[in-house]
Amino acid sequence: MSTSYHSDAAAPSSMIADINVEATAPDPRLVADLVAANHILFDQNVVDAFGHVSVRHDKRPDRFLLARSMAPALVTAADIVEFDLDGNPLTAGGRPVYLERFIHGEIYRARTDVAAIVHSHSHAVIPFGVVNAHHLRAIFHMSAFIGTETPIFEIRDHAGDGSDLLIRNGPLGAALAQRLGARPVVLMRGHGVTVAAPDLRQAVFRAVYVDVNARLQVQAIGLGAVNYLTDAEGRAAAAANATQIGRAWDMWKMRVEGKL
Amino acid sequence: MSTSYHSDAAAPSSMIADINVEATAPDPRLVADLVAANHILFDQNVVDAFGHVSVRHDKRPDRFLLARSMAPALVTAADIVEFDLDGNPLTAGGRPVYLERFIHGEIYRARTDVAAIVHSHSHAVIPFGVVNAHHLRAIFHMSAFIGTETPIFEIRDHAGDGSDLLIRNGPLGAALAQRLGARPVVLMRGHGVTVAAPDLRQAVFRAVYVDVNARLQVQAIGLGAVNYLTDAEGRAAAAANATQIGRAWDMWKMRVEGKL
Amino acid sequence: MSTSYHSDAAAPSSMIADINVEATAPDPRLVADLVAANHILFDQNVVDAFGHVSVRHDKRPDRFLLARSMAPALVTAADIVEFDLDGNPLTAGGRPVYLERFIHGEIYRARTDVAAIVHSHSHAVIPFGVVNAHHLRAIFHMSAFIGTETPIFEIRDHAGDGSDLLIRNGPLGAALAQRLGARPVVLMRGHGVTVAAPDLRQAVFRAVYVDVNARLQVQAIGLGAVNYLTDAEGRAAAAANATQIGRAWDMWKMRVEGKL
Amino acid sequence: MSTSYHSDAAAPSSMIADINVEATAPDPRLVADLVAANHILFDQNVVDAFGHVSVRHDKRPDRFLLARSMAPALVTAADIVEFDLDGNPLTAGGRPVYLERFIHGEIYRARTDVAAIVHSHSHAVIPFGVVNAHHLRAIFHMSAFIGTETPIFEIRDHAGDGSDLLIRNGPLGAALAQRLGARPVVLMRGHGVTVAAPDLRQAVFRAVYVDVNARLQVQAIGLGAVNYLTDAEGRAAAAANATQIGRAWDMWKMRVEGKL
Repeated sequence: MSTSYHSDAAAPSSMIADINVEATAPDPRLVADLVAANHILFDQNVVDAFGHVSVRHDKRPDRFLLARSMAPALVTAADIVEFDLDGNPLTAGGRPVYLERFIHGEIYRARTDVAAIVHSHSHAVIPFGVVNAHHLRAIFHMSAFIGTETPIFEIRDHAGDGSDLLIRNGPLGAALAQRLGARPVVLMRGHGVTVAAPDLRQAVFRAVYVDVNARLQVQAIGLGAVNYLTDAEGRAAAAANATQIGRAWDMWKMRVEGKL
Repeated sequence: MSTSYHSDAAAPSSMIADINVEATAPDPRLVADLVAANHILFDQNVVDAFGHVSVRHDKRPDRFLLARSMAPALVTAADIVEFDLDGNPLTAGGRPVYLERFIHGEIYRARTDVAAIVHSHSHAVIPFGVVNAHHLRAIFHMSAFIGTETPIFEIRDHAGDGSDLLIRNGPLGAALAQRLGARPVVLMRGHGVTVAAPDLRQAVFRAVYVDVNARLQVQAIGLGAVNYLTDAEGRAAAAANATQIGRAWDMWKMRVEGKL
Repeated sequence: MSTSYHSDAAAPSSMIADINVEATAPDPRLVADLVAANHILFDQNVVDAFGHVSVRHDKRPDRFLLARSMAPALVTAADIVEFDLDGNPLTAGGRPVYLERFIHGEIYRARTDVAAIVHSHSHAVIPFGVVNAHHLRAIFHMSAFIGTETPIFEIRDHAGDGSDLLIRNGPLGAALAQRLGARPVVLMRGHGVTVAAPDLRQAVFRAVYVDVNARLQVQAIGLGAVNYLTDAEGRAAAAANATQIGRAWDMWKMRVEGKL
Repeated sequence: MSTSYHSDAAAPSSMIADINVEATAPDPRLVADLVAANHILFDQNVVDAFGHVSVRHDKRPDRFLLARSMAPALVTAADIVEFDLDGNPLTAGGRPVYLERFIHGEIYRARTDVAAIVHSHSHAVIPFGVVNAHHLRAIFHMSAFIGTETPIFEIRDHAGDGSDLLIRNGPLGAALAQRLGARPVVLMRGHGVTVAAPDLRQAVFRAVYVDVNARLQVQAIGLGAVNYLTDAEGRAAAAANATQIGRAWDMWKMRVEGKL
C-alpha cells in the first residue's frame, strides 16, 4: 500500500484557489447540455444530492467541465467550472469543488475516446459492487453497452483498510481509470459506479440504463439462472442503440424543462 | 440459420420514403385514442422513451397506424403514420419510422383477430424472458388473459448469435408472430414483451396488467410455491374482465389529460 | 360444489333496476367521508381503477353506501348509491353498480360490529393469498390489527374450478363473510383482499397498513426467520393504534384535497 | 419484568397539562429548521403520518423541541412545543403531545453529545429489526455512520409479552437509550428505528441514509455474501461525509419549499 494514496484528510469539497492559467470559453450549448444532464440524472433517480457529471471541454481536450460542489438538481450554467486533468480548477473563483473531481480528470487522461463521465451512487447498482456471486452484465438490449462483465474497483487494493472510500487525489483517480480500462462502466465497491462515454448524451443514457439493468438483474437472479446477452449480441445491440440516444435525451430534457 | 434474417445494419429508426399508394384517412377518434394510448402507457410506466403501440386501420385491415419514431410521451395526432403490413409507411413524409414496425405488421398479417399491439420493455416482465425456472402466467384475475403459459421468442433461433435483438425486418417479425401463435403475449428474450388484443383499449389494459402480474409473480415466487389460476379460471376471469376495460381506460385517460 | 354459486354470466358491472323501497338520506358528512375514502385509497396506491369502499348507512343498519361502478379516483357525492344487504340498489337510477357489491352486503349482514369495508387488489398483499409457505400476519405495530393469522378465501371450495374469481352473488358473498369470520382481513386467492372495520376511517387505515405489512413481510422473509408480533402484542398495539387513526386520515385527506 | 414499565393504558397521544415552569424562547432559526426537518422526512418517505423529529433546545440543554402530536407533513412553527427531559410539555397549551416523547427525552438525558433525534417507521429498516440472520450495517460510504453493527431494542425484555410496543414512559425510554448506547442508530423490534445525531441536519441525513442502506442491504443479501465496510472504513467515511450534510439538506429544503 503506497502512502501516496493518502492525502491529507481534506474536506470532501475543497475550497481551493484557481490555478493561474487562462481559461477557454466553452460552447454555451455544451454548457447548457451539461446543466440539463445534471437535472436529468436527478430526475431519473440516478443521482440524489450526490453524484456528478462532466464533459470534456469542446475546445481543449486537456480540460473538462464540471459543476462546483453542489447538488446536481440545482446546477445552473453559472455553476459550471473548467478544470485541467489534474483536477485543478481554473474558474471556481473560490467556490468549493468536488473532492472527487479526480475521477473525471484521470479518466479523461487515460481515455482519449471518452468525452463525458457520470459518477453516481445509483441504488440498484451498488449491490453488484459488494458481492462476488453475481456480476453486473447486460441483461437486455438497452444496456448492451455493459457487455458481459464489469470491473469492480476495490479501494483497499490501493489505500488499504481505513480509507473513506473516496477518490480524493490523482493517484486514486488513476487507479480507478486503470481498473475501468477500456470499458464503459466500473463499479466502486461500497461506493457507487462511474460510467464513461464518447459524448454527454450517451453518458447520461448509460448512467440511466446501467441502473435499470441492475434492477432487472436482481429480479431475474431471484427467479433462477439467467440467459444474458452474449458478447456478440452485446456489441451488435450496443451499436444499434447508440443511434437511439436522442429519443431518450429529448424526452428527458423536456421533462426537466417542465414541458412534459 | 437463414441469412435472410440479417438485414443491412440500418439505423434503428429509418428515414425511408413513403410508398406511392393512396393513404386512407382513419377515424379521427381512433387516432385520438392512439395518441392517448401512447401517453397512458408512459404514464403507467409500461414504456419509457422506448416502446410503441399501434392499431389496425379502421377502414382498411391491410393497414395499421403507428407513431413516427419518437418517445411515446410526446406523440400527437400529427405524428401518427399509416403503414402497410410490410411495414412500408404511406404518410411518414420523410420523418423517421420505428425500425421495429415489423412487429406490428407481421402480427396483424398473422392474426386477423388482433386490432392493436403494444411493444414494450416493461421492467417487471423482462426477467421472465431470460429465465427458465419460472414462467409468466396469470397469478390474479386482472391478468387472467395471460393464461397458464407465455411463449418466449428467442431470436438466436432465427438470427443466430450476434444479432442486435431487434425485429428489424419482415422475416423476424413473422418469426415473432409465429411464436406468439394464438396467444395475447409473447416475451422477447433479452428485449421485452409484445402484447396483442382485439382492440386498442384492451391492448393497453393488457400491457399494464402483464407488467403488474410479473411484479406480483416475482414477489410470490420469493415466498414459495404459487397457486396460479387454472386454465378454466383464466378463461372465465378473462371474459369477465374484458367488460371492465372502460373503467381503467377512462381513469387513465383523465390522468394524462390532466383532469385527475 | 353447489350450483347456487354459479350466477348467470352477468357483466361485472350490472345495470339493474333500483328496488322499489324508500331510500333514506344519509348524513352528508358520511357521504363526504366516503368520497374522500375513495380518493385516499387511490392516492395511497391501495386501489387502482378497481377496488371499492363502502360504509354502513348511518340511519339504517340494513343499508350500506357504495359508489356506482367506476374508478375510485373519480367518485363524487352524486355517485354514492344506497344498497340493501342483498346488494339491491335503491338509488342507482339505472347507472351500473359493482358486480361485487355482495362482498359488502354479506359482510354487513354477518358482522354487526362492522361499519365499513374495503375491497382491493393491493399489490403487496396478493402474493400472500397464493402461497402456503408464509402467512400474512402483523410484523409491526402499525398493522397489529392483522393479528397472527389471516384466512384465505379459496373460491374453488365454493364454485369449483372455472369460476371467474369474482364474488358475483349472495351465496359467494356469504361464503366470503364466513371465511372472514370475526377477523378484520380476509385474503382472496388469486384476486385480492377485503378489510372490515368498525368505522370508515379505520377501514381505510387498515387497507393501507395491510398493504404496508405485506411489503415489509416479503422483505423480512427474504432475510430469514421473522420475529412477528405475538397475539398479546397484537391486541395491545391494535388498541393503541386505533386512537391514532385521525392523524393519518387528516393528512391523507389534505393530500387528496390538494392542500398538502 | 418490572411493572414500572407498564403505564396506565393512555392514549398514544396525550392531552396533558403543561408543567408550571418558565419556557425559554428558542432561536427562531432552529424552530424553522425543525419545521423543515419534519417536511423533509415526509418528502423523503422516511416518515408517513407517523414518526417524529426533535432537537435539543439551543439555550437550555435540559429542554428539547418537538412538534405537538400530528403528522410531520403538517407541522408549522406554531406547532413546536418545548419539553423537559422527563417528557413534560411546557408550551403545549393543552394540545395533544406524542406518547413516545420519552424516546427523545431519555436519549437527550443519556447522551450529552446528541442534539437531534428522529424516530420513524421507515419501511426498509423494519425488516432488520425482526430477523437475526442479517444485521443492519454500513454497505456504502453514505451510510458509514451506521458502522458494523446496530443494536435491536427488544421491548419484551423490559415490558414482557403483551406490550403495545410503544415507548410510553420514562423507564422504557431509558431502556431504549441504554440499548442505543453510544451508537447513532437503534432498531426497535416490530416497531421502527430511532436515529441520534450531534445536530438536526445530521439527524435528518442519517434517518434518510439508514433507510437507503437497508434497501441496498436487502438487495445485496439476495445476491450473495456481502462485502461490507470495515470498522476503519466506516469511521473514515463517516467523518468525510459529515462535511457533506449541507449539500443534501439545502436540496431537500428547496424541494419542500417548492423551489425545486
